[in-house]
Amino acid sequence: MRVCFVGDSFVAGVGDETHRGWAGRLIARGIERGYALTGYNLGVRGDTSAMIRQRFEAECAARFPPGDHAVGVVFSFGVNDVIRWGAKPRVAVEDRIPNLAAILGAAGERNWPILMIGPPAIADDALNAELLELDAQMRAFCRSQMVPYLGVHEDLAGNDLWRREVAADDGAHPRAAGYDLLAGLASGAWDAWLQDVAARLEP
Amino acid sequence: MRVCFVGDSFVAGVGDETHRGWAGRLIARGIERGYALTGYNLGVRGDTSAMIRQRFEAECAARFPPGDHAVGVVFSFGVNDVIRWGAKPRVAVEDRIPNLAAILGAAGERNWPILMIGPPAIADDALNAELLELDAQMRAFCRSQMVPYLGVHEDLAGNDLWRREVAADDGAHPRAAGYDLLAGLASGAWDAWLQDVAARLEP
Repeated sequence: MRVCFVGDSFVAGVGDETHRGWAGRLIARGIERGYALTGYNLGVRGDTSAMIRQRFEAECAARFPPGDHAVGVVFSFGVNDVIRWGAKPRVAVEDRIPNLAAILGAAGERNWPILMIGPPAIADDALNAELLELDAQMRAFCRSQMVPYLGVHEDLAGNDLWRREVAADDGAHPRAAGYDLLAGLASGAWDAWLQDVAARLEP
Repeated sequence: MRVCFVGDSFVAGVGDETHRGWAGRLIARGIERGYALTGYNLGVRGDTSAMIRQRFEAECAARFPPGDHAVGVVFSFGVNDVIRWGAKPRVAVEDRIPNLAAILGAAGERNWPILMIGPPAIADDALNAELLELDAQMRAFCRSQMVPYLGVHEDLAGNDLWRREVAADDGAHPRAAGYDLLAGLASGAWDAWLQDVAARLEP
């Protein structure tokens, strides 16, 4: 099995002094549970939905061998879309869901199963309010496409450990304990999805 | 600082139940030593020098932001070049150094500092003899280009722990202790190179 984790700095695990992030923890969890799983972390600092839309297909294709392998892609992005550079958000409100739609569409055409994890919370209440709205829109769109979606924003925004680590680090990224927490939130959806992906290998 | 680790399954850390590999260990070591380092693991299972030549530039460029950042690329490949598919090696002997030359040339044009780690040893004496020769050719070529090169093949081929883990796993990849060992072998060259890369940031 080959699974790519595609997204932003949270996927890359920025801030985690063990350099594993939530993606690394979920990959190790899958291996521990007995899957012959190779996981690839394709999180990139600062990536918006528009940037991920540009690069993800070629990068995943280079990691998915032809033949009898089960493959899949876990996506997580959104925070960089709402971040301001100057007065404007990096991705305009009206372009965010179309970017998501293009990404899911391209992955769907390749027949790659998808799991979508929503954007986490950062140390900025105004941006968090916008992220909560984006989270709801992404969830609704994924549901319309029959793509499993796990929102984590609300849980993280209300979690003292997460808030404390993010505030103490750089205002956006937690450290190892925060990534433990996020991996824990995602573990149930990950286990179920991985089982579905593995089932594609059964004769 | 942004550093990409580009290579094959050994770079990806295949076989390591902790999903860090030697690259993950070196990145964590750099962070522990106080560098503001973001490391990206771009190892791909089965990748030959020809495949890396095709993909590395776009993938690294997507991870190196414009502006005042120190960037660098650590390469390691070679084992998949000598692996046989049928009677033939996956990359012909006469194409291996030209692929390396093209990779170093493209990175050099981008002004990306490079550290090259040689191919490790596997559980096949005939292929190891060929890898030892390739290791010497790669070292000589890198030296001619003033690119730092660290050979690890001989140390690993003669190491009981490495041989035992590789033989017990899939004949090619070690487990966590083997990756600890390889990271240890590479740590001196890594520390020195990282310091050089960081020095580019100084005013």
